[in-house]
Amino acid sequence: MTWKLTKFELDNPNLLVNESLLSLGNGYLGVRGNFEEGYEEGYKSIRGAYINAFHDETEISYGEKLYGFPAKQQKVLNVIDAQTVEIYLDDERFSLFEGEVLVYERNLHMDAGFAERIVHWISPQGKEVKIHFKRLVSFVAKELFALDITIEPITPVGQVKIVSTLNGDVSNYVDKEDPRLASGHAKRLHVTDVRQEERISLVKDTTYSTRLEVACASIAKVQAENHDYSSELKEMSVEETFFCTGTAPIHFTKYAVYTDTLRHGDDVAERAIKLLKQTQNKTFVELLAAQKAYLDDYWAISDISIDGDEQVQEGIRFNLYQLLQSVGKDPASNIAAKGLSGEGYEGHYFWDTEIYIFPVFLMTNPTIAKNLLLHRYSILDSARERAKEMGHEKGALFPWRTITGPESSSFFPAGTAQYHISADIAYSYIQFYLATQDEAFLKDYMAEVLFETARLWADVGHMQNGEFRIDSVTGPDEYTCIVNNNYYTNVMAKHNLLWAAKVFERLKETDGERLQQLAGGLELTETEVAGWKTAGDNMYLPYDETYKINAQDDSFLKKDRWDLKNTPTEKFPLLLNYHPLTLYRYQVLKQADTVLAHFLLEDEQDFETMKNSYDYYEQITTHDSSLSSCVHSIMAAKLGYFEKAYEYFNETARLDLENTHKNTKDGLHMANMGGTWLAIVYGFAGLRLKQSGLSFAPSLPAEWNSFEFRLQYQGRLLKIRKERETTSYTVLQGDPLTIAHNGEILGLESGKETLV
Amino acid sequence: MTWKLTKFELDNPNLLVNESLLSLGNGYLGVRGNFEEGYEEGYKSIRGAYINAFHDETEISYGEKLYGFPAKQQKVLNVIDAQTVEIYLDDERFSLFEGEVLVYERNLHMDAGFAERIVHWISPQGKEVKIHFKRLVSFVAKELFALDITIEPITPVGQVKIVSTLNGDVSNYVDKEDPRLASGHAKRLHVTDVRQEERISLVKDTTYSTRLEVACASIAKVQAENHDYSSELKEMSVEETFFCTGTAPIHFTKYAVYTDTLRHGDDVAERAIKLLKQTQNKTFVELLAAQKAYLDDYWAISDISIDGDEQVQEGIRFNLYQLLQSVGKDPASNIAAKGLSGEGYEGHYFWDTEIYIFPVFLMTNPTIAKNLLLHRYSILDSARERAKEMGHEKGALFPWRTITGPESSSFFPAGTAQYHISADIAYSYIQFYLATQDEAFLKDYMAEVLFETARLWADVGHMQNGEFRIDSVTGPDEYTCIVNNNYYTNVMAKHNLLWAAKVFERLKETDGERLQQLAGGLELTETEVAGWKTAGDNMYLPYDETYKINAQDDSFLKKDRWDLKNTPTEKFPLLLNYHPLTLYRYQVLKQADTVLAHFLLEDEQDFETMKNSYDYYEQITTHDSSLSSCVHSIMAAKLGYFEKAYEYFNETARLDLENTHKNTKDGLHMANMGGTWLAIVYGFAGLRLKQSGLSFAPSLPAEWNSFEFRLQYQGRLLKIRKERETTSYTVLQGDPLTIAHNGEILGLESGKETLV
Repeated sequence: MTWKLTKFELDNPNLLVNESLLSLGNGYLGVRGNFEEGYEEGYKSIRGAYINAFHDETEISYGEKLYGFPAKQQKVLNVIDAQTVEIYLDDERFSLFEGEVLVYERNLHMDAGFAERIVHWISPQGKEVKIHFKRLVSFVAKELFALDITIEPITPVGQVKIVSTLNGDVSNYVDKEDPRLASGHAKRLHVTDVRQEERISLVKDTTYSTRLEVACASIAKVQAENHDYSSELKEMSVEETFFCTGTAPIHFTKYAVYTDTLRHGDDVAERAIKLLKQTQNKTFVELLAAQKAYLDDYWAISDISIDGDEQVQEGIRFNLYQLLQSVGKDPASNIAAKGLSGEGYEGHYFWDTEIYIFPVFLMTNPTIAKNLLLHRYSILDSARERAKEMGHEKGALFPWRTITGPESSSFFPAGTAQYHISADIAYSYIQFYLATQDEAFLKDYMAEVLFETARLWADVGHMQNGEFRIDSVTGPDEYTCIVNNNYYTNVMAKHNLLWAAKVFERLKETDGERLQQLAGGLELTETEVAGWKTAGDNMYLPYDETYKINAQDDSFLKKDRWDLKNTPTEKFPLLLNYHPLTLYRYQVLKQADTVLAHFLLEDEQDFETMKNSYDYYEQITTHDSSLSSCVHSIMAAKLGYFEKAYEYFNETARLDLENTHKNTKDGLHMANMGGTWLAIVYGFAGLRLKQSGLSFAPSLPAEWNSFEFRLQYQGRLLKIRKERETTSYTVLQGDPLTIAHNGEILGLESGKETLV
Repeated sequence: MTWKLTKFELDNPNLLVNESLLSLGNGYLGVRGNFEEGYEEGYKSIRGAYINAFHDETEISYGEKLYGFPAKQQKVLNVIDAQTVEIYLDDERFSLFEGEVLVYERNLHMDAGFAERIVHWISPQGKEVKIHFKRLVSFVAKELFALDITIEPITPVGQVKIVSTLNGDVSNYVDKEDPRLASGHAKRLHVTDVRQEERISLVKDTTYSTRLEVACASIAKVQAENHDYSSELKEMSVEETFFCTGTAPIHFTKYAVYTDTLRHGDDVAERAIKLLKQTQNKTFVELLAAQKAYLDDYWAISDISIDGDEQVQEGIRFNLYQLLQSVGKDPASNIAAKGLSGEGYEGHYFWDTEIYIFPVFLMTNPTIAKNLLLHRYSILDSARERAKEMGHEKGALFPWRTITGPESSSFFPAGTAQYHISADIAYSYIQFYLATQDEAFLKDYMAEVLFETARLWADVGHMQNGEFRIDSVTGPDEYTCIVNNNYYTNVMAKHNLLWAAKVFERLKETDGERLQQLAGGLELTETEVAGWKTAGDNMYLPYDETYKINAQDDSFLKKDRWDLKNTPTEKFPLLLNYHPLTLYRYQVLKQADTVLAHFLLEDEQDFETMKNSYDYYEQITTHDSSLSSCVHSIMAAKLGYFEKAYEYFNETARLDLENTHKNTKDGLHMANMGGTWLAIVYGFAGLRLKQSGLSFAPSLPAEWNSFEFRLQYQGRLLKIRKERETTSYTVLQGDPLTIAHNGEILGLESGKETLV
């Protein structure tokens, strides 16, 4: 059961959630789990196919627009619809909302990479039929979405008619009851080409503002005793109809290939047709086999097996599967907050990538991890421009939310003010270097990113009484905005500054020529680098003597405490029931802030301070953000609060499967999915990745018998298995390795298990 | 010259500015100084007539709309156009942008209450004519706008044609080059009635959203040797044409009467016609006489005469005249930031009223001052609702900007977060009581307002270590938003809290019945009132030991200082060149903040602290707000910085006349106009109004020979005259009075000058 997600619901709310849960994708293309034939009239559906980073720009309206407020917002688009297939038994249209449903089951096969719908149905007029829908978005040919439908009449049917559409008349989802969705921005594509050539249907759409193009070429085929075919070219779509007769089961396939300007250049239509021709002769069975092979490789490294809890096992596999489906694998793309599973957050990339998702790939699939960093590198120029716009003489300020670089956040207190994203990106570059020791990467990308982000911190902060202070920023916790000396921001900036200086020194030693070239281009001097070191070494990190904790910021502990215990349940999440000013006025957290800093940079304070801080902040944290529970789980595990660690972990493991946050219909919570993995690997197994190497501090939740996972590290493949009394470490591939286990040095030989 | 403002410009930028400068109004109706016949094609004009508080509601768009963000914004509307009159000499249309202009002069007569345009013109075809336009907005009949035009052909003209229009097809001003003006919101009125009865033209417009109605009834008359008349009823206007022949001068008058739902009930059209019929037989000369009589009364009390500086004399008279023209005189209206002279700030009422304008009327025309307070009382229920929305259990939070009560601010950090407005309103109620001793007013209005605002402070703040602290608010300075313990806010809240408790005690003594009634309705207990006293007595007022100043807020002095000296001139005002976050990060002020608190509540700290604070903040204040210089002038005078006091005063006196802030075209800066008066009366004359009575500390600017003004105080009329060596005080009307002069008690007899 843990490799297969099964669903039976037919009510509208669950159908919407299942559209997200059963979505398919490959990092480039995503298709929501819609019904080919649609729902009952009046049902809502977020019917969608998305291409990572394929977007238009819309104007942002402000009541009062101040200097530096972004004028435009990027928005990922719902692209051409290739899902639609209608089936008629004589004159009766197949619909699960009429007649009698004898069998209805949907499965997502996470080991095999496809989804299916198994139906046994009697029409209102008594015609009985079995229909088996299968679909996949290929991991091997990223442009390909394929449908496979078997129709098996049980009672005689005169004619089975199959109507397959390729439709360019698409919009983004609008809920007229939800004023937050601006209806004027829904329709951002118009059809600029519709044609059919040798049974290949082609539709091309162009965005209104960015003038990006997307094409979809599709071909539909039928195997049946007899069938006739007709097709109709409409203004914005191609409609193909198959008239099938005979008693044998009918087998229908439809392959759709998507191309877009960002990846396929100017001639997207011809490229789509060409790519389709390359794949169209593969059988669906062959596609499935290739899919399976790809996933076998993925799971061989990425799976976490848990003995003792099938629910959690299913949750973690679902999360890892969806992360793979959503993460961009070319430098034009990153991973959106909702992946490719929905339209929430407009397909934007946030810090979620670096802090919650990147580590998963870093330790299991460094190639994908590297690509995430390359995407950030590709928007470095935008970040430099934004820094200037924000009044900084030098440096790079990465946007809080973006697709191709421009800041798309329209509420700066919980957007642009979150300067920490620049340090978060630097942190992920540093982690990549620690995990891979990729010196070429350091020279080609990392040095520049670290230098430019360090410059930002040097410019935004200032020295006062021997302390380097950073004012007017917002930390991760969005219930406390625009503060001075946010602990998280300051400590991450410190890390950024000192590592930038370190990388400068390293380059000086290893590749003076490259350093000269870089420093020349950036007009970077040794004096400036010395300034980074001074700022980093003297970074002010708020500490409160009364509570013996790190204060979230300069003023946080002086505010009144929010009375969470007496806040009615229906008032959560607080942000939907209180004005931001009200929230800012109190000690109350949306999500882990200082606690997260303690996880990421645990050597910056002693254990007692971290424990006290955790105890303090836990009392006033709502976890209204899906980025919070996993961090509390990790830190609880570190601090020895094992039951808590498990409770928080449990909130993350099945957050979307249980629709805990009530908005899974808008897409899956990618960061939380990464957080589940983090909670196991960084939490229960206690992994840390530092300059000193890998360390572990494993614990096994009382509810489990064991857990096991693999990691990639500096060219090695490691296996870690935790049982009740023991931990086993094995270097499956690569050189011997020294690690720390509960603080003790452990030498691991290649290919040999070490049991402790 | 100082009673008459004269203008000669014909270029577009100056014409736009003069539309504001030569605007006419009476507190109800305002008409901009447009040309009857319009400008040259392609010239911009903000052609407008406004009725105070007559508004529509428009939706506010947000990129991200959070809880409690106002959904709608009120907006004062440009109403029916009665200004338009075109003159044709045979077939040539009169226009100052063609032919030859021999004489062109415009005057605003501040002593007489009308504007005129004197023209001597030769048409392109050589026809010579003198035209004299006069116009007034009546102070006596508030609905009346009257035009008077004399046309005197110098060379023979076959026919003079006069086309007079009453046009309901009006919009608010849109500048397509200025993205801040949302074009979609310009057209908010549609015509719902057009007719003509017995030569009376009538147009009625209705707003789209609020369904408020405005009507204008007009009648045009001609005196000429011979004339024919025709009129045409168009879809949205009435056009009347007079065909005049003969050699005698032609005399044209047009009276237009405006009515609206807010003042005239449901039948605005009939009311307008009726009111017009009551006035139509008065000659323009009679109207002028009534206007003059009204202004004689006004100036008898309100004039400030300055010996030694005609420029300043003109400035102060202009300001006082425009304040009178703009201030609302019925409880439906207050005074908008731009008065009735333009569309800037959408006709909203701000704290400008209480802190900068109210004191002028309080001390010269308490009836008008009282009306301003009554308007605030009329929106108390809205303020109570807003407090609830902002998370407060009780109390009233007045909106930062509004017309009829709802918060119309869409950027909360420099809007709703300015909680101090509630204390500012309380302050003005207290000042009114001190100046009038109006016990009935205290019982009927003041007590309730003070109680409800005190409740707000009790709820928003909290006790910590024996100090009452107020977090997450914005003070007057909009370059530093959302801070903790803003000195201004805290000290004003303290005043509010303690006075609320005081009024409670007073009512208990003087009218227990009324108190019981009030307390019953408000569910107010003695315990709660005791809490106000505790909060007020223990209010935390930030003080910095290093600089020996009051810190603007908890964190202000820890920030980096903005380097004003090295900021290029073109970067001012800073808000148009820097993102708010950049500004928030530095010690830099848009406007007086702590310095203003020191003016309003000077007894809360010692002289040295005020002097040090002034010295400190002056260095980092940009005066980018027009509300700033006057405060610095007042405090400079108090602290003995007499030259500075005069310099700052000079920046206020002619701010609009010189278009210093470059936006006078959008309307006059009412608060600054009040500030000029304050700078003389509170600044140079050193007036303070406290529970202990009136006090003065007069100084005479070196540039002047003397200045003199009058005040109303507790039923008396006082005259104060400051010469080089002496000050003279006279109780012109009313009982003897004891005042303080430079700290010494002075007994003033009735009708006798006291010279010191």
